[in-house]
Amino acid sequence: MESAVRPAPRTSRVPQHGITGLVRQGEREPTWLVRAEKPVQYEVRMVDDLLDPSRSDLAEAGVTERTDHRRFVVIDANVEAHYGRRLRAYFEAHRLEPWFCTLAVEERSKTMDSVTRVVKELDKFGISRRHDPVIAVGGGVLLDIVGFAASLYRRSTPYVRVPTTLIGIVDAGVGVKTGVNFESHKNRLGTYFAPALALLDKTFLRTLDERHVCNGLAEILKIALIKDRELFELLEAHGPELLRTRLQPTSVQDDTGQQVLERAIHGMLQELQPNLWEHELHRLVDYGHTFSPSIEMRALPDLLHGEAVNVDMALTTVIAHGRGLVTEQDTSRIGRVMRRLRLPQYHPVCDATSLITALEDTVRHRDGYQRLPLPVGIGDARFVNDVTPEEIARAVDTLAAGGLDAR
Amino acid sequence: MESAVRPAPRTSRVPQHGITGLVRQGEREPTWLVRAEKPVQYEVRMVDDLLDPSRSDLAEAGVTERTDHRRFVVIDANVEAHYGRRLRAYFEAHRLEPWFCTLAVEERSKTMDSVTRVVKELDKFGISRRHDPVIAVGGGVLLDIVGFAASLYRRSTPYVRVPTTLIGIVDAGVGVKTGVNFESHKNRLGTYFAPALALLDKTFLRTLDERHVCNGLAEILKIALIKDRELFELLEAHGPELLRTRLQPTSVQDDTGQQVLERAIHGMLQELQPNLWEHELHRLVDYGHTFSPSIEMRALPDLLHGEAVNVDMALTTVIAHGRGLVTEQDTSRIGRVMRRLRLPQYHPVCDATSLITALEDTVRHRDGYQRLPLPVGIGDARFVNDVTPEEIARAVDTLAAGGLDAR
Repeated sequence: MESAVRPAPRTSRVPQHGITGLVRQGEREPTWLVRAEKPVQYEVRMVDDLLDPSRSDLAEAGVTERTDHRRFVVIDANVEAHYGRRLRAYFEAHRLEPWFCTLAVEERSKTMDSVTRVVKELDKFGISRRHDPVIAVGGGVLLDIVGFAASLYRRSTPYVRVPTTLIGIVDAGVGVKTGVNFESHKNRLGTYFAPALALLDKTFLRTLDERHVCNGLAEILKIALIKDRELFELLEAHGPELLRTRLQPTSVQDDTGQQVLERAIHGMLQELQPNLWEHELHRLVDYGHTFSPSIEMRALPDLLHGEAVNVDMALTTVIAHGRGLVTEQDTSRIGRVMRRLRLPQYHPVCDATSLITALEDTVRHRDGYQRLPLPVGIGDARFVNDVTPEEIARAVDTLAAGGLDAR
Repeated sequence: MESAVRPAPRTSRVPQHGITGLVRQGEREPTWLVRAEKPVQYEVRMVDDLLDPSRSDLAEAGVTERTDHRRFVVIDANVEAHYGRRLRAYFEAHRLEPWFCTLAVEERSKTMDSVTRVVKELDKFGISRRHDPVIAVGGGVLLDIVGFAASLYRRSTPYVRVPTTLIGIVDAGVGVKTGVNFESHKNRLGTYFAPALALLDKTFLRTLDERHVCNGLAEILKIALIKDRELFELLEAHGPELLRTRLQPTSVQDDTGQQVLERAIHGMLQELQPNLWEHELHRLVDYGHTFSPSIEMRALPDLLHGEAVNVDMALTTVIAHGRGLVTEQDTSRIGRVMRRLRLPQYHPVCDATSLITALEDTVRHRDGYQRLPLPVGIGDARFVNDVTPEEIARAVDTLAAGGLDAR
């Protein structure tokens, strides 16, 4: 399950662990060395039916001994339409007074302007620096915006993540990254800022439209492909059913959806925890994220994030196949699962020239090397630095001609 | 020299040290606890005549084994007028190719828009994620803006601080805070983001106008008042001369300016290092920063930062005197030093009502308590939480009537 080769040189930017303090050296031109370690901890909690008034998770989320009865809640407009009444009833049952800041967000409004809107509202609310939790309820885009605003506001204000989409539950909701797009660049601006708590409730998925379920399944498939063969087999065996049931149990015994979520979240956190600040740029979870940032931005509003990631995974599976890393049979299996999860393997913006430019920007993002994770069979991966323009062009041709399982 | 009382309860937001990892607990509703420590280190280096081509400090600043010959330099327009030619000659001598981004900044343009300008330029330059250092050359405002941009760009890009003002050398240049103002709120948005290196060269002060020297002396006086009586005595004995000489030596033996700078920087770093992320909100270095954020913003463009800080210090010295913490004689000494450093002790925006509102906002910033440092004699301080509106009103009256040494 672990990754294989990690070839490119490490940067010298990783500071040493374990020594903190202030050291003064030198006489005529003194130098001070400042060393410190910032401790970070956060909890990711799965919860069944968060808005059940008998549950205290949300009422107590991010609370300190000095938090009062007010709660600052940023909520997605769509989510409010579905859950606003229940949410208000929940807070009322706990004698809490919510202050709602409703945002209509989508990838195209994932900008500094949306962050500014949240900041203005925080000013109006008069939030305290440490003991009023900012509660973010919505999909990945909303969580990224609110996390960003919270991290900047007074240089950090605690916040709580309540993802309401599948991609939010398995991806944006569990890590520490925040951010917005800038001009044509995806997540060009952002911070690493852990939430106090992430509350993951899969019952929110009941009202999610099919396409957004597929969107989240793409990130689950990513974890499966790079490190969890059993998870892949679950998706292979139950994909269409998971889609239909929105990962909810169909009987008391049925825990397929729960298993899939737990494996995906656990796999994700295993990768994130040792590398929260990305000092190490060889990141398995970057699988599917080499070409996709550019594909997603250029195709806007055509492709959702997970869909763009899937196009990238299809592309890199073909490249891996071309290198003999994935067999013909496994390539077809992967293609078949993608198809059954209704995930696209191609989009017209994927011409070879654009993808080569996209790779160049990603190389800058990965500090001068491709550090490109390629699948090895199903459930393993390795990093390469030598993908060529020809390989990319051939892969595009394969996908344009019908995808992984159509050859 | 150390602080005295730290009475208010600590928040429960400070995570535990020393345990990192991923812990999964629970069966039906699993919980993951993610713990990690972010190591941070940076160097603060005093340098004599940084732009002397025989020195390699700046050429090598923030460089890794893979940095090429390009350098991204954000420079204050004023500083460029004075030092642009020498700076270009310096880079040429080191066969480096600088890319200049010139900003005309002042407190009123310390906004997200200025950050955006730097970000756009970083995009144009095509900076690498880890091995192209962003070099910021200018005063405190410029350093705050560029540090903020660097911290957000790709969620962190290394940068180097080269302060060219006295306040930059002793304050903004040596810590880890970045930020911009938002609407009427000073530094409402920002991050904690350590530079790779801070290069402090006092020869830049030769071209600094008197008022900006005074501005920096206010922050030095702050350190003196709260924790370094000897530093106060240096200011008392040599204040006007330091102003006149811009802290440069008047002879080979004269190291007064150097001593003052070293003591101020060392004292500042002693306070910052154990508390880089302000988990502890009792901060001695917040002395002079309780009322001043509001005073400075409301008086714009009348008061420089250090001038507003000095008004705050005058105000709180009167309050401390009223409580018997500072003797009549020491109060007069402090007032006399302020006067000789040409620092204002009062400004017309300081009416009692506004200052009480300012304190309320600071209380929010300090998570519900005043945590107000008050001087104890000269060179010591303590925190209080019970300053009353009446004390503030009386202090304003005293200052409006002529200041600390005029009673």
